[in-house]
Amino acid sequence: MTHSKPDAPFFERIALVGIGLIGSSISLAARRAGLVGEVIGCARSAATRDRALELGLVDHVFADPREAVEGADLIVLCSPVGTFSGIAEAISTAISPGCIVTDVGSVKGAVVRDVGPHVPDNAHFVPCHPVAGTEYSGPDAGFAELFDNRWCILTPPAGADPAAVEKLDRFWQLCGAKTETMDANHHDLVLAITSHVPHLIAYNIVGTAEDLETVTQSEVIKYSAGGFRDFTRIAASDPVMWRDIFLNNKEAVLEMLGRFNEDLSALQRAIRWSDGDALESLFSRTRTIRQGIIDAGQETPEADFGRGPEQHSSGDES
Amino acid sequence: MTHSKPDAPFFERIALVGIGLIGSSISLAARRAGLVGEVIGCARSAATRDRALELGLVDHVFADPREAVEGADLIVLCSPVGTFSGIAEAISTAISPGCIVTDVGSVKGAVVRDVGPHVPDNAHFVPCHPVAGTEYSGPDAGFAELFDNRWCILTPPAGADPAAVEKLDRFWQLCGAKTETMDANHHDLVLAITSHVPHLIAYNIVGTAEDLETVTQSEVIKYSAGGFRDFTRIAASDPVMWRDIFLNNKEAVLEMLGRFNEDLSALQRAIRWSDGDALESLFSRTRTIRQGIIDAGQETPEADFGRGPEQHSSGDES
Repeated sequence: MTHSKPDAPFFERIALVGIGLIGSSISLAARRAGLVGEVIGCARSAATRDRALELGLVDHVFADPREAVEGADLIVLCSPVGTFSGIAEAISTAISPGCIVTDVGSVKGAVVRDVGPHVPDNAHFVPCHPVAGTEYSGPDAGFAELFDNRWCILTPPAGADPAAVEKLDRFWQLCGAKTETMDANHHDLVLAITSHVPHLIAYNIVGTAEDLETVTQSEVIKYSAGGFRDFTRIAASDPVMWRDIFLNNKEAVLEMLGRFNEDLSALQRAIRWSDGDALESLFSRTRTIRQGIIDAGQETPEADFGRGPEQHSSGDES
Repeated sequence: MTHSKPDAPFFERIALVGIGLIGSSISLAARRAGLVGEVIGCARSAATRDRALELGLVDHVFADPREAVEGADLIVLCSPVGTFSGIAEAISTAISPGCIVTDVGSVKGAVVRDVGPHVPDNAHFVPCHPVAGTEYSGPDAGFAELFDNRWCILTPPAGADPAAVEKLDRFWQLCGAKTETMDANHHDLVLAITSHVPHLIAYNIVGTAEDLETVTQSEVIKYSAGGFRDFTRIAASDPVMWRDIFLNNKEAVLEMLGRFNEDLSALQRAIRWSDGDALESLFSRTRTIRQGIIDAGQETPEADFGRGPEQHSSGDES
């Protein structure tokens, strides 16, 4: 992938409110493409602030979001979405004229509701969602390539300034992402099935496995290569971030979960009544969609995600 | 991992009934360790037989399992478990005295039931399950390292010859696996939660996503990096193999599925009633078990399974 560098920084001063996996990756990706003059960070925790400076992710760092956003021409909210309302209210009068205010939240309807009213008329509000991440959190988790070839969804509200939307769109592309524009509510429905419900059922099955009396935790761990371990990756995602996602995309998640449950009941019945044809029929058609994802460059074709056997085992831990 | 090579072949003649991912990997792993004189293959499909010879996986290949097992001192059933009963009946009188008959099926109670009665008294029946695999099938999918550092569970029936069990146990260790002995019914319960139910819910959510009217297949594919794509790997597993697993581990799967559903209902309710504490509490404790799996050498600690961004995208496929 080539990153053509613009002559002048795209943004003179980016304020990242939250310097976790996504915030730190934005800093690294923006700098890789020469898109930014100064990066300002903001984090509540002193440990995160110190670490962000130490890693060179930010030029300056603040605890107070008002101080952090001062003079910024791009403000990116990168904290859990449950914090957005309070942050937006706090920074409202400190936002510079012409500034683009955006976020990276995994829900968009609630962000429009919570942040929109606090962005002054002389600034621009363009919510975003880069569909990328790993199971790790915090400033050490970021890397410049996180957004490469991943989709970033922009959900500009009605009446958003086209030039601001275009500028942010270009910014994400220069950070390596492919971009798409979408209605916020439709975004929430799409992500409910491609991200939120998958996370919910992964968290759920890991919880179920932990609570069993008939199978020990040691057995779950030893034989997890049968499929279970894949779910533990997603179920290791940031707890507060995900709590806030479910609290803020309730309607779409419950709708998709209803569909999932309905289909699972049918499968359960097929097993109980030994309906092999129903099982084989479903199991045969689900292969196709993975090939589509591989063909679209969103997944590796390598067997087992390219994981090799772990040779650095601690040995007979059982 | 070192593989100390025994002086004489462990087995003079191994008959692999079924030459898919597991059968072909057994051939490659056994040869890597110098464990075998001759490898005989058996497959119903002429294409598989030709390919197995072409790849050098087998020295001779047959369509008829009776012919394949003649003179073998180890017979391994590597086809879908639903075929075991018929195969065992067909080969029964062709099994050599002293031969060890085993299998690699993902369920064990049904195998004891279906195969046991057909193994003559002068041979040894020791069911096995190597907990290893990928989403690919067929003779091209095999590789010698598949069992390295993975667990292989032996479920010898009461009264099994200790020397035969010990020999098979050692065979698997020399093929790279760690071994454990377990009661067949307990195996089926453990695997129901670590493998069978995870596969079922992965198949299910991929089916649900495909059937939606409000979200297009193209959207599901594009935004699958939000978590969904992980499930498609498991849901790309062999349909017939998995149909047979569910038909043959009905009781344990339905029990574990009942627990999963109960827990999911509680989560669903927590979302509906905005019980953030309940969500955060579950999401926090599920992190621990992944660390246990990584510490046990059963998973990579690398972010996102070590997958990089796919640079060989076909581009704007949308």
